[in-house]
Amino acid sequence: MRIRLSWLGALALVATWISVAVAQTDPLPSWNDGPAKQAIVAFVTDVTREGSPDFVPPAERIATFDNDGTLWVEQPIYVQFAYALDRVKALTPQHPEWKDTQPFKAVLEGDMTALAAAGEKGAVEIVAATHAGMTPEEFRQTVTEWLSTARHPRFGRRYDELVYQPMLEVLTYLRANGFKTYITSGGGAEFIRAFAEERYGIPPEQVIGSRIITKFEHRDGRPILFRLPQVDFIDDGPGKPVGINQGIGRRPVAAFGNSDGDLEMLQWTTEAGKRRLGLVVHHTDAEREYAYDRQSRVGKLDKALDTATVDRWTIVDMKRDWKTVFPVRP
Amino acid sequence: MRIRLSWLGALALVATWISVAVAQTDPLPSWNDGPAKQAIVAFVTDVTREGSPDFVPPAERIATFDNDGTLWVEQPIYVQFAYALDRVKALTPQHPEWKDTQPFKAVLEGDMTALAAAGEKGAVEIVAATHAGMTPEEFRQTVTEWLSTARHPRFGRRYDELVYQPMLEVLTYLRANGFKTYITSGGGAEFIRAFAEERYGIPPEQVIGSRIITKFEHRDGRPILFRLPQVDFIDDGPGKPVGINQGIGRRPVAAFGNSDGDLEMLQWTTEAGKRRLGLVVHHTDAEREYAYDRQSRVGKLDKALDTATVDRWTIVDMKRDWKTVFPVRP
Repeated sequence: MRIRLSWLGALALVATWISVAVAQTDPLPSWNDGPAKQAIVAFVTDVTREGSPDFVPPAERIATFDNDGTLWVEQPIYVQFAYALDRVKALTPQHPEWKDTQPFKAVLEGDMTALAAAGEKGAVEIVAATHAGMTPEEFRQTVTEWLSTARHPRFGRRYDELVYQPMLEVLTYLRANGFKTYITSGGGAEFIRAFAEERYGIPPEQVIGSRIITKFEHRDGRPILFRLPQVDFIDDGPGKPVGINQGIGRRPVAAFGNSDGDLEMLQWTTEAGKRRLGLVVHHTDAEREYAYDRQSRVGKLDKALDTATVDRWTIVDMKRDWKTVFPVRP
Repeated sequence: MRIRLSWLGALALVATWISVAVAQTDPLPSWNDGPAKQAIVAFVTDVTREGSPDFVPPAERIATFDNDGTLWVEQPIYVQFAYALDRVKALTPQHPEWKDTQPFKAVLEGDMTALAAAGEKGAVEIVAATHAGMTPEEFRQTVTEWLSTARHPRFGRRYDELVYQPMLEVLTYLRANGFKTYITSGGGAEFIRAFAEERYGIPPEQVIGSRIITKFEHRDGRPILFRLPQVDFIDDGPGKPVGINQGIGRRPVAAFGNSDGDLEMLQWTTEAGKRRLGLVVHHTDAEREYAYDRQSRVGKLDKALDTATVDRWTIVDMKRDWKTVFPVRP
């Protein structure tokens, strides 16, 4: 009896030991073993090992992440644009003229052809009409409310549930290794700040994105900031290194993207003559998510895919590399 | 004999206990006891005590500091302007035409009347000629080198030794209480980043300041950022809350300034209907530093001084409140 108990005890101990060991050695459980996962782990191991020629002091461990298509779904349209379209509908009672004015008419009638015809100018008008005319706090509040009710047309889930589980694990893994994780998005910084802390563990001060002009003024004697319908800064393409330098003042040591809008950030990050990580999420999984690259209107990945091969960035093949795509429902 | 030893031992113990207790209870040893010191300590105590109605969660403990005149000396001219004048002299061999062109001629001849006559336009020309045409890394390098050789005309010390010891203690005290400390300066962010980490313990990503346009480009096939002679953003006056919102995305709970350029930041910070700290350093000490306020060309403190009284901000009377001004030489 005593012996059997000991055996059971020993087995339990071994089981515990194994599970602890596995937990310790697999920080990325949603990643299949393969070159992408290996590249991430090898990079983190190399730059955090004291005495390694690749060692990076904790203060310099800056990792930047694109948002749309890198941390969450960007198809069939950018989430922020889905927000803007819904806001047009919600605000129409206050703007009856929109029923007869493009591009608003197209939005209200769901006329995607007319909307596409309105082009970038139309998109800017829609953003201006829905993103300005309030304080940053008020704007974030509308985003929070919208996220709580809006659902993705294909998956039927909240948009902020359609974040990539494997990338959440990368964020956590990097932070556990002393990295500061930043978002550097072509989307609006204030839009992302509405959910980034809760969903990604990334606080507002680590969100860099596009901006509209925001002005200080007194309203009813109270000092406020007020958002104007005018673009201030586009944090995309060549703007990403500029935004990073403005907001961080250091060159990242790791950068994560998925489209040509991330090309310059990846180049600027990895071209340092030192151990750096550039990673491109390649959407190859039409079944679980989407498959798109060179021909896509949203999240086009063309030049950055070629450069990834030349510059030896890590290319994530979503279908091959990710065990799961989205978090299980809470 | 045994008794005398015990007495000595007890005395030593008491002495140790007292010094530990003093160290624990006086985080601001360079401050004289008085309303300013008491206000700082009371604020930190109130917002960090769990269960207090004024409690602020650690993530929201953001404190912003003006730099010139709040953290280091700004008289007789802004340090960054002293840098620019010295750079004009250093660069003149490459620009022989400067000897006959204003405002450079005035700088080279030390003609302060002609320099003043060149006004803001002249100042902008000088800044453009000395701050642009290079990468941010190269610019910071020139600042670092200049700081190592330049000396303040009155004190004969390195400019970055002329930081205020009492304010260094405030920075350390706030950080020890879970605050993130930021610089929000009308001066250039890149200029301040050259020394802020070493002198203030404030990393580049927590320095917000004015900016010139910085452009991404490829030079000799390498991706770089390049500084252009064109103002992008002035982080002063009403620009300070804007810069804080861009870079932090939260309203600070404590703000520190010394001039009218800090007025809007102080208003925006303290007008929250909650326990907040607004603090104004009033330069009243012509003997140890400088005495100036309403009439000063540099660091004018007029409207912010009136508002400080009305809004009950803490006014530091440098002469009365500070035991020492500068750190002892290392």
